[in-house]
Amino acid sequence: MAKSNLDLVNECDKFPYHQDDPSFYAAHMKNFYQFRVNGCDAVLGYIAKSVAEKFYWSPDNWAVDTTKQTVTLTTAADASPEQRTQAVAQTLNEAVKRDTFQILKGWRNEMYPVFAPGGQFLLELERSASPLFGIVAYGIHCTCYVQDDQGLRIWVPRRSRTKQTYPAMLDNTVAGGMSTGEKPYECLVREAMEEASLPEDVVRANSTAAGCVSYIYVRDPRAGGETGLLQPEVEYVYDIKLGADVIPKPCDDEVEAFYLYTVDETKKALANGEFKPNCAVVLIDFFIRHGILTPENEPDFLEIVAKIHRRLQFPTASHCAK
Amino acid sequence: MAKSNLDLVNECDKFPYHQDDPSFYAAHMKNFYQFRVNGCDAVLGYIAKSVAEKFYWSPDNWAVDTTKQTVTLTTAADASPEQRTQAVAQTLNEAVKRDTFQILKGWRNEMYPVFAPGGQFLLELERSASPLFGIVAYGIHCTCYVQDDQGLRIWVPRRSRTKQTYPAMLDNTVAGGMSTGEKPYECLVREAMEEASLPEDVVRANSTAAGCVSYIYVRDPRAGGETGLLQPEVEYVYDIKLGADVIPKPCDDEVEAFYLYTVDETKKALANGEFKPNCAVVLIDFFIRHGILTPENEPDFLEIVAKIHRRLQFPTASHCAK
Repeated sequence: MAKSNLDLVNECDKFPYHQDDPSFYAAHMKNFYQFRVNGCDAVLGYIAKSVAEKFYWSPDNWAVDTTKQTVTLTTAADASPEQRTQAVAQTLNEAVKRDTFQILKGWRNEMYPVFAPGGQFLLELERSASPLFGIVAYGIHCTCYVQDDQGLRIWVPRRSRTKQTYPAMLDNTVAGGMSTGEKPYECLVREAMEEASLPEDVVRANSTAAGCVSYIYVRDPRAGGETGLLQPEVEYVYDIKLGADVIPKPCDDEVEAFYLYTVDETKKALANGEFKPNCAVVLIDFFIRHGILTPENEPDFLEIVAKIHRRLQFPTASHCAK
Repeated sequence: MAKSNLDLVNECDKFPYHQDDPSFYAAHMKNFYQFRVNGCDAVLGYIAKSVAEKFYWSPDNWAVDTTKQTVTLTTAADASPEQRTQAVAQTLNEAVKRDTFQILKGWRNEMYPVFAPGGQFLLELERSASPLFGIVAYGIHCTCYVQDDQGLRIWVPRRSRTKQTYPAMLDNTVAGGMSTGEKPYECLVREAMEEASLPEDVVRANSTAAGCVSYIYVRDPRAGGETGLLQPEVEYVYDIKLGADVIPKPCDDEVEAFYLYTVDETKKALANGEFKPNCAVVLIDFFIRHGILTPENEPDFLEIVAKIHRRLQFPTASHCAK
């Protein structure tokens, strides 16, 4: 059964909205604990109840309130980011030692940041643990395309069959997560080389920043690890228009091959569910910005545009250069 | 004091979000009645309390519940759109006769549609009355630009000084509301001629559908008529790239003059608050899609992108061609 574009969006932005059904939403929220940090008023992420109940929360660093459903890091209100980071790392190391969570088997040795309102940096934690806390993750996604007398064609990589997450699925030409301190454009340049062998000068000469998509993904079995964990994400999107003579090539072992797909081939692969869920969303955004999906040919246009730019209920970063 | 881009967005998307402060939101909602139609479960708009209390709601066609704060059109559940339209028109005619609302002095003789979930057409009502019911309005906004060795420049019209709404403010090159049954592209073609003297062949050859913006505007004195009325809107956005030899010219009496502004001139006029509020939002969206505003140079990038693509809590239309 072919998936509509709205089906694809709903697979990626899966967390309910309060406005659709306030009582369902309230009931659903019972499945989550709020992740909080002492000294910050905001909720920083939603921890699945099953996770909150499984973690060993050392009373040295954590306060768990089972009535209010909150897990609070109790470091001093004026603790340094290093102190908070250290406290969270201890907890994660303990979880690894106890073998508490499957998802931590995918340990990346990459740190993801957590921000207070106003973009204040609170702490950082191991990337693979971010869905355990349901914190906002940041990344970049880039669509490389060719526009010539054969029309618009898109460079589509197939993920390696040995990749931990979404093996063998189709992906965006260049995509990657941003570690603490990394800027979006910097990440684009780095990943363009790592994933597609595109040199920096090609990226700088041909890329356009084109906004961002945001959504709350709920991890399913294809993501590996525990299911039902939340992954609120912001992906900065870029377009790179390439001449037909520039051919992206796999560089690291993440990509098996690149295909140059027509729009119709891309749409067909989308409808077949061949793309990693958030990559589908980025392509749909590309199609909308480039006049391929229009209000006249996409019945769910408004719902799609709104959902792929979800306003997250957590504080987000400013990646503005100082 | 210069306005930031987020200030401009907040002037246009002014209605609070539940997720920011649920108790403030609940208190704020006490200022509104829900507009409902018998036979449809959804809330179709929010009527300002002052409006709900001032209207003469004939018991022949309306049920007003002051406890639940609802105003319900009581035509039969299986009434035809014509029957519902007729009932609303009677009420509006009575309001004009009684001189109940200033805003109805701007009577347009243009009908705006109201939809049930799934895009089912329920009824239509006079355009100038739509903020009284707080229903979703649809329109198109188009940015015409020139890109040559002088860089990217934007065609910016100044609204006529005699216009009822936002006189003498800056506008988008082409913009207009969509009446019942009109399709977005059709509206673009019509308005491009009416407002900028751009012939259909120029529009068809050079335009790109580029998505939509959506927001809940709260009318201020510049809009004319009662203040505090809600105007949830969807504006389909288009770009038209013109050669430097194509010069938009005023055609009807809505536009005083067109200027060809550089990006810096446009940014300055935005910061000065010279643009009509929703036009500022469309330009900000244009800047984001064209890599002029980036995560690195716009500190409020994420908040801006999410707010200008607000997911409305009312059923919306599908403008998909049948």
